[in-house]
Amino acid sequence: MSRLDSFIRRLEAQRACLELAADLIADLDGEVLELGLGNGRTYDHLRKLFPHRKIYVCERTVAAHPDCVPPSPLLMLGDMRETLPALHVRLAERVVLAHLDPGNGEIAASKALADQLSPLIVPLLHPDGVLVSEPAITADQLSALPLPDRIEPGRYNLYRRISHRPPP
Amino acid sequence: MSRLDSFIRRLEAQRACLELAADLIADLDGEVLELGLGNGRTYDHLRKLFPHRKIYVCERTVAAHPDCVPPSPLLMLGDMRETLPALHVRLAERVVLAHLDPGNGEIAASKALADQLSPLIVPLLHPDGVLVSEPAITADQLSALPLPDRIEPGRYNLYRRISHRPPP
Repeated sequence: MSRLDSFIRRLEAQRACLELAADLIADLDGEVLELGLGNGRTYDHLRKLFPHRKIYVCERTVAAHPDCVPPSPLLMLGDMRETLPALHVRLAERVVLAHLDPGNGEIAASKALADQLSPLIVPLLHPDGVLVSEPAITADQLSALPLPDRIEPGRYNLYRRISHRPPP
Repeated sequence: MSRLDSFIRRLEAQRACLELAADLIADLDGEVLELGLGNGRTYDHLRKLFPHRKIYVCERTVAAHPDCVPPSPLLMLGDMRETLPALHVRLAERVVLAHLDPGNGEIAASKALADQLSPLIVPLLHPDGVLVSEPAITADQLSALPLPDRIEPGRYNLYRRISHRPPP
């Protein structure tokens, strides 16, 4: 498989996972969180999927297409290890869908960053919220969900926060 | 359609056009020319399609993944308006497949560059050679070929050089 093949499969997997996640959280009240804006293509897809939700975006510096730059009240610039804790006041348990794609192409670095970020992401997730992530994540409070049909295991990852609410 | 949808369709169109072009030139003797290396994904796909052909690459400066950097005898660094004429000695009528993807994301700029480059590319093409191009190209010596099945017109472009050889 060429790098072109692999890239196309990754993008198709990303899109399919986001669309499945959108179905899964359709009935939940809350916001969307994009972790890594990059060129803004995925953010644009999230805008199409969630026209009526606020989409918060964390990114170090903006390098996106001008059409894909979030409105400044929803754009958290800087290191996510600092901006995510700062979002806690506004977004604790409010995020119905978070998407993590550090996207620097370095698998080991992405995985290491994801491991640092996941304890900061989980508290923001709605108790039934979903995390879509390119690097696989191991966290006690996250349970892996089945991937969409025809998506190869490991190509993208889908998790739901495990609720620890007392039974009714 | 989101920018993510559009990007996936463009990559799928690119891959389908390259694979159709590979079939079309399978019986011709000659080399391959990649105009624009970028991150090297398409070059990697060309290597898979043409393991037994030389693949020449023109690019201003290399910014590709280290695995996707061509061997230096086949890598022409600099402005293509200068490197293409310099290749004429080696490649006149020898290129069975050229792929042009200036890929700066600016449609008008890509089209303008393609118009400047096409008179430099055509003389390198084998008399039955094929040009696969992201921007559409208008040139007397190029005839548009039908696109692969399921590829929308205009998403990618496929041309064959028109031979001006006397009839047998």
